Amino acid sequence: MGIIVQKFGGSSVANAQRVRNVASIITDTYKAGNEVVVVVSAQGDTTDDLIEKAGEINPKASKREMDMLLSTGELISASLVAMAIEGMGFPVVSLSGWQAGFVTDSNHGNARIRRIDKERVQNELDKHNIVIVAGFQGLNRYDDITTLGRGGSDTSAVALAAVLGADLCQIYTDVDGVYTADPRLVKTARKLDEITYDEMLELASLGAQVLHNRSVEMAKKYNVKLEVLSSLERKSGTEVKEVIKVEKMLIRGVARDNDVARVSVVSVPDVPGIAFKIFSLLAARKINVDIILQSIGRHGTKDISFTVSRSNSDIAVQALEEIKDVLGCEQITCDKTVSKVSVVGSGMVANPGVAAKMFEALSEANINIHMISTSEIKISVLIDEEDSLKALNAVHDAFQV
Amino acid sequence: MGIIVQKFGGSSVANAQRVRNVASIITDTYKAGNEVVVVVSAQGDTTDDLIEKAGEINPKASKREMDMLLSTGELISASLVAMAIEGMGFPVVSLSGWQAGFVTDSNHGNARIRRIDKERVQNELDKHNIVIVAGFQGLNRYDDITTLGRGGSDTSAVALAAVLGADLCQIYTDVDGVYTADPRLVKTARKLDEITYDEMLELASLGAQVLHNRSVEMAKKYNVKLEVLSSLERKSGTEVKEVIKVEKMLIRGVARDNDVARVSVVSVPDVPGIAFKIFSLLAARKINVDIILQSIGRHGTKDISFTVSRSNSDIAVQALEEIKDVLGCEQITCDKTVSKVSVVGSGMVANPGVAAKMFEALSEANINIHMISTSEIKISVLIDEEDSLKALNAVHDAFQV
Repeated sequence: MGIIVQKFGGSSVANAQRVRNVASIITDTYKAGNEVVVVVSAQGDTTDDLIEKAGEINPKASKREMDMLLSTGELISASLVAMAIEGMGFPVVSLSGWQAGFVTDSNHGNARIRRIDKERVQNELDKHNIVIVAGFQGLNRYDDITTLGRGGSDTSAVALAAVLGADLCQIYTDVDGVYTADPRLVKTARKLDEITYDEMLELASLGAQVLHNRSVEMAKKYNVKLEVLSSLERKSGTEVKEVIKVEKMLIRGVARDNDVARVSVVSVPDVPGIAFKIFSLLAARKINVDIILQSIGRHGTKDISFTVSRSNSDIAVQALEEIKDVLGCEQITCDKTVSKVSVVGSGMVANPGVAAKMFEALSEANINIHMISTSEIKISVLIDEEDSLKALNAVHDAFQV
Repeated sequence: MGIIVQKFGGSSVANAQRVRNVASIITDTYKAGNEVVVVVSAQGDTTDDLIEKAGEINPKASKREMDMLLSTGELISASLVAMAIEGMGFPVVSLSGWQAGFVTDSNHGNARIRRIDKERVQNELDKHNIVIVAGFQGLNRYDDITTLGRGGSDTSAVALAAVLGADLCQIYTDVDGVYTADPRLVKTARKLDEITYDEMLELASLGAQVLHNRSVEMAKKYNVKLEVLSSLERKSGTEVKEVIKVEKMLIRGVARDNDVARVSVVSVPDVPGIAFKIFSLLAARKINVDIILQSIGRHGTKDISFTVSRSNSDIAVQALEEIKDVLGCEQITCDKTVSKVSVVGSGMVANPGVAAKMFEALSEANINIHMISTSEIKISVLIDEEDSLKALNAVHDAFQV
C-alpha cells in the first residue's frame, strides 16, 4: 500500500485490447490498496502519423506548432485508458500535461520540466480517483504547450513519482526487464532482478534502449525506485535503485553499439594545444565525442582518433578539414564499419581482473581491438562491426552474467 | 480593414491540399490589412473516428472523458492550418479553446460558453499574428475540457466575433451560401445575397442545415454580422444580419423536413385538461413537439394530433400508451410517412396573401394538406412524404423566390 506511478509506452496502449489490458493492470494495483497515478504515451504509431500529416503541409513547421500537434497523441491515449477503467467500474480521471501541473522551459520539442504543481493530481488522489496523465508534455510560462522530446513519457513518470514521493515508479514496456545482454543477440542473456542507477545509465547509453537516460538520471537524483517490466506478461521485472544486494557477479551486462564511427586525425605535430583545437571545434559544432585515443608521438608527430555517432561523423570530418592547415595534419580519415562492445558493472572498480578477462575473451575469439575506454563501472572496446556479434557473445559467456 | 473572424468546417480542412487552400484564404484576408482570427473544426471524419475508438473500449464512456478525447480533433486541425500559414511566410499562432479563453459551464458534451477571456487572442493580434483557434471546446471552472456539442465551432466563431467586436464573422462551408430552397431538390433555387437572423433561424430549424441555430441566435443577440460562403470557390456568399434591404420578394426560402412523424390520440373525451396531460407528459420525457392540431369536438370526443421527430415518435407513443386509460382515448396512432414543407420570410406578416398562395399552389399540384402551422415569418404544412418533392417545387415556383 502506497503511492505507485505506472508508465505505459505506446506499444502497451496500441489498440483497444491492449488498452483494456493496461486498465486491468492499473485497477489490480488500485484494488491492492494503492494510490495509482498513470502516465501514458501516444498509441503505437500515432506520433509518426501526426509527424507525417505535418510533413505534407509544411516540412519546416515551427517547433511550437509541432508541439501543439504532437501533444494530442498522449491526450487521446490518456482519455481512452480512462474510459477503459470507467468501463470496469473504477473512479478515474484523465489529465493533460498542463492539467497535471507540468511546467517546462520554452525549449519546444525538447523541453525540460521546471516544476510540477501537484495540487490537481493530489486532489484527485484524495478523492480516491485513479489518475491518468498524458505524458511527454507540459506548459511553458507563456501558456504554450511543450513536449519533452525522446523518452519524454518516462521522464514525466519519474518526475511525478519524485514530486508525489511515490513508493515505486513502474515503467511498463514491451520487454520484461533489463537483460545482461540483448536477448536477440545473445542466447544466454538473462534478466536482471536489480541494477543500480549508474549501471542502468551506462547500459542505456550503450544502446540497451529500455529506459531513457534523462529519466534514469532524474530517478537517481530524487532517489525514485524504478521497476522496468512488461505490460504483456504478469511477472516481476528489473528494479533500478541506488544500492543493490551484493552478488558474486562482477558485471551487470554486456552491450553493443553499432552507431559508432571512428575519425582519425593522422600525423599532427606532437606539440601542445592540438587536442584542444580539435575538441573545442567539435564542441562548438555540438558533436558529442565518446572514446578518444592519442598515439604516442613518434618522429615529432602523433595520431589522434575519436569516436562519434555515425550521423555526426561527416560533419566532424568536414569541420576538421576546414582547419586542416591550422592542425598541420597529413590527413583526416573516417571509418564507419566499427562497433563498440562494453561491459558494465559496479563491482568492476574493485576488481582489476575484469579488463584482463574481457581482453582474453576477445583474443580467444580472434577479435582485434582498435580502441579501449574505461570508467569506474564500464569497459568499452572498439572493434570491427563484423566482429561485434561474436564479441558480444564471447564477452557475455566469459563473465557468465 | 477591420477585425474578421473566419470559421472553417471539417470538410474545408479535410486534407493537406484543403488545409493549404484555407491558409491562402486566411492570408489573403490578412494581406488586405485585416486582423484575422480563425476558428477551425476537426478534419473531415476525425471526430467520428475518435468516437469509434472510444466505442471499441467503452460504449458508455463518461462525457467528461469523451470531451477530453474529442477536443483533440480541433487541436490537430488548428496546428495544421497554422503550419500551412507558417509555410507561406506569415506570422501565426494556434490556440486551444482554453488558451483562447473559452470558459464554459460543466455540461460536458453540450457545454454553453460562459465567457471568453480575450486577453491572449488580443495580445496575439497586437503582435500582428494571425490567430488560429480550435473550435468546439472550452474549459469549465474545474479546469476540465468541455465541448460545445453540435455546431459548436460555429458558436465558437460567433462568440469570439462578439467579444472582439469583429466587423464580420465569415462561416466557410462546402456550400456557397443560403438558398431559397435545397438546390439538390429544387432546380430553380437561387442563392440569397442577404437574409435576416430570424429567417435564418426558421430555415435552419426547417432542415436547411447551413448554420447551427445556437450560433445564429448568438449572432442576433450580439449583432454579429455573419456571412456564409464556400471555402472552395472564391465568391461572395449570403450575409445574415438584423435588417436587410427591402425586396419585392415576400418570402426568403422554402424548406422540406422529412424527419417528421405524426402522432394522433384518437377520440379522447372533449373535456378540459386532456391537452395538458398529453403535452406535460411529453415535456417530462424531453420530447420536442412541433405542430399541434386539435379537431373540433363531435359527439363528446375529439382527436389531438401532433408532430415529433421520427426518432422520438416511438417513445412518444409508448409514453402515451401508458396513460391511455387516464386519457380515455380510443387509440393512439403514429404515421412516419409524412413530411413538412415550409415557406419563410419576414415580409409575410404584413401580407395575408402568402398562405392563400401557398395553399393554392399545393391544391393545383393535387397535394393533400394534413396539418397547418403558422408563425409571424413562417407557414408550415404537413403532407405525405411522397408528395414532398413535388410540393417543394410547386411552392417555390409559385413565389418565384
